[in-house]
Amino acid sequence: MNKPAREHHYVENVQEQLKLVQHLLEEQILAATVTHRQELPRDERHELLDKMLHKRHLAKLREKLDELHSADIAYILESLPIEQRLMLWDLVKADRDGDILIEVSDSVRESLIASMSREELREAAEQLDTDEIADLAPDLPQNVMRDVFKSLSIEEREQLRSAMSYQEDSVGALMDFNMMHVREDVTLEVVSRYLRRFDELPDHTDQVFVVDRDDRFKGVLPINLIVVNAPETVVGKLMLTDTIRLNPDDKAEQAAQSFERYDLVSAPVVDEDGKLVGRVTVNVVLDFIRAESESDLLNQAGLREEEDIFASVWKSAQNRWSWLALNLCTAFFASRVIGEFENTIQQFVALATLMPIVAGIAGNSANQTTTIIIRSLALGQISQNNARRLMLKELAISGLNGVVWGGIAGLFAFFLYHSIPLGLVMTSAIVLNLTVGAIVGLFIPLIMQKLGRDPAIGSSVMITAITDSGGFFIFLGLATIFLIH
Amino acid sequence: MNKPAREHHYVENVQEQLKLVQHLLEEQILAATVTHRQELPRDERHELLDKMLHKRHLAKLREKLDELHSADIAYILESLPIEQRLMLWDLVKADRDGDILIEVSDSVRESLIASMSREELREAAEQLDTDEIADLAPDLPQNVMRDVFKSLSIEEREQLRSAMSYQEDSVGALMDFNMMHVREDVTLEVVSRYLRRFDELPDHTDQVFVVDRDDRFKGVLPINLIVVNAPETVVGKLMLTDTIRLNPDDKAEQAAQSFERYDLVSAPVVDEDGKLVGRVTVNVVLDFIRAESESDLLNQAGLREEEDIFASVWKSAQNRWSWLALNLCTAFFASRVIGEFENTIQQFVALATLMPIVAGIAGNSANQTTTIIIRSLALGQISQNNARRLMLKELAISGLNGVVWGGIAGLFAFFLYHSIPLGLVMTSAIVLNLTVGAIVGLFIPLIMQKLGRDPAIGSSVMITAITDSGGFFIFLGLATIFLIH
Repeated sequence: MNKPAREHHYVENVQEQLKLVQHLLEEQILAATVTHRQELPRDERHELLDKMLHKRHLAKLREKLDELHSADIAYILESLPIEQRLMLWDLVKADRDGDILIEVSDSVRESLIASMSREELREAAEQLDTDEIADLAPDLPQNVMRDVFKSLSIEEREQLRSAMSYQEDSVGALMDFNMMHVREDVTLEVVSRYLRRFDELPDHTDQVFVVDRDDRFKGVLPINLIVVNAPETVVGKLMLTDTIRLNPDDKAEQAAQSFERYDLVSAPVVDEDGKLVGRVTVNVVLDFIRAESESDLLNQAGLREEEDIFASVWKSAQNRWSWLALNLCTAFFASRVIGEFENTIQQFVALATLMPIVAGIAGNSANQTTTIIIRSLALGQISQNNARRLMLKELAISGLNGVVWGGIAGLFAFFLYHSIPLGLVMTSAIVLNLTVGAIVGLFIPLIMQKLGRDPAIGSSVMITAITDSGGFFIFLGLATIFLIH
Repeated sequence: MNKPAREHHYVENVQEQLKLVQHLLEEQILAATVTHRQELPRDERHELLDKMLHKRHLAKLREKLDELHSADIAYILESLPIEQRLMLWDLVKADRDGDILIEVSDSVRESLIASMSREELREAAEQLDTDEIADLAPDLPQNVMRDVFKSLSIEEREQLRSAMSYQEDSVGALMDFNMMHVREDVTLEVVSRYLRRFDELPDHTDQVFVVDRDDRFKGVLPINLIVVNAPETVVGKLMLTDTIRLNPDDKAEQAAQSFERYDLVSAPVVDEDGKLVGRVTVNVVLDFIRAESESDLLNQAGLREEEDIFASVWKSAQNRWSWLALNLCTAFFASRVIGEFENTIQQFVALATLMPIVAGIAGNSANQTTTIIIRSLALGQISQNNARRLMLKELAISGLNGVVWGGIAGLFAFFLYHSIPLGLVMTSAIVLNLTVGAIVGLFIPLIMQKLGRDPAIGSSVMITAITDSGGFFIFLGLATIFLIH
């Protein structure tokens, strides 16, 4: 009977498991004593742990870890402070190291790899499929990679070379090589017999791929069709030929959109010559979409990469610095714009209290425009045909906003300082600055896209810089002309 | 032979299809004449279209639409301006209306439904599965829903009622009812015969569910195991019992995380009594994750909902207003804080030029902190144990940032105005305001989480309000004490 040996439990609530593990760890351990012994080999660290950890707890922890799925252990490792994390990592059975390293986030992987010896790393890598080794490769020391490479078969070396040759955001980088292929002239019975030779089909095998003698892709045969059709049916009659084919050099995002639109579970990757080179599965696409969405959110706040929440202060600060430096520069520039109007402010101090309003509202409105444009660009909804139309629409919205919010702000200024001219300057400045905001909010992402850059990165700094400096300039400039005698 | 009739082509590049359709539409049509006739019944509009559209082009368009997958037509509809969109919608075969309505975004669905008669809507809804009707229900007029309900079987009515009873972000809302179930005492051969009675298995059937006489969930039988095992094997021996079970009232996000962690294709939904009530499939999870990530990005810019890029100016403005109003209020408040220091500014105008720097850098830094905290909260990585540790870390980073960037800003102030006290006030104000930023950046999301609200919504407005007003207060306050004599 071919029943897969599934040793690890699925858990509904991984947070609870985390609490349990943390409790077991904290119960007994003087954390500091271990971290300072990172230079020790694993065996000695184990001994040390053994001594410190109450035997009963140690057994419980080991048992718990054996039960848990690799993805859950990865989650728990990510959620533990660095000392506890390394301690737990030492307790994980060595034969699961590879799987878990694949699951953890980049920053946490770094901390785990740093604690492992060359030998341990080689063993971990050798447990993995070639496409997974390729994912791990950038983080592994060169000598480890050399060892791993030597241990592979010729076919696997070829796969590894190919997997490592693709760009990070390409279909090739998402691809694995666990596909089943059959010929079109055999019957379902032959296919079934062939499949039965495997104890277990690779994950996400919802279809087998039909290829010819030269490995050229002919079509797909969904497993479900094998089940619902008579065994004597010939593959060629059943196979679907009008099916999506991904190219290894396509953008990964494009593949993700295909999976979403067509509700795919797996898709063949076919090269320029029509040869089947691999497959992409939905679980990898899911991870890709999640990672993309997270990096969008992080980038918006100017975080270069995912931050290990337990990283050192120094490392975290570095992750955040380039953004703060950039913002400081634009703030200096805005400050010099205000500096040009010191005389005006001296004569009419109310201006200093009101100017942040002009800058702020336009910045917010421009960022709304940009968010919508970036989204439409990502979906490919913006063409030359409708760009003009969108511009008119955004200008109209900014005009409407200007009248409404500029009007309210003008009244605010009038009631505070009892000056009708000041109120009018306030309203006009907001209307003008909202217009500036609409234009830059629309064109900056469009231009960045044209230049082949990701419009989601950096657009908002530039836009805020322009609406800030522009707002100060417009407001103080108008005030100089109309209020100062 | 059970081969599914798949009429619609998969396309690698849907943008190209959009261009083609748009080209065909634009070639011939005076768009305005049709939009103003929305009140006409569909038949008459068809006639009108027929007259206007060159016959040859009409045929081409219809052919194109028949070929395209519903998801691709949905995409094209979303990317067309409103007149062209409604024109194309009229050309779509009525029997595909339902599928396409399910695929389009909420705002576009509204515009399509508004153009349909009660009769058309009823027909469209009746093409759908009950879980899909539930998705459509909020957008359908009440009388249409009544008609649809009447046309359903008793079992389907029960399903529809159940599907509509779950909260929008619960597992129940993601669930469908297309699951196959078998008993544990039958052989694989019986299962195969049962499955063969269907022309085609429901999408994403990677496993059949094993239930007892009372529909209580016992385990799952992966289709792959049916293929690789001998026909005489009994289901009970093969079925996997340690498998994830979702509860219909669970948060959808929790289910999504299970799919990601365990690389699932489908999962059973089991109610409190252990009864199998439905299943969730990975394609729905994929859409959910994408939608969540988009709404996160939109919310960050204060957009309440996904905006149809061709929506009217008035509608778009409304979508953006509550955010702008909120920001204007906080700006008014900050303005009054500055107003308290008018005397100080009058005596030392340089302060007006420098104060935006103090506010800005702390706002940026605080938003970085919040972004990381919100992410860690979503992953459940923050516990009482490590909250103190995180606070110390964020305070340390803000201190480091204060010394570095505050120092640079202090030098900037000194070189511009040749006043050492001014430079020192600048540096101290930035250090203090960064500390304020770190504290609010950490605690506001934590408090919102405690209150049961989504920390991703609204955190950043509050934080910016505090770092702005706080920055002005600290900087001008210190200046009043140390610079004004």
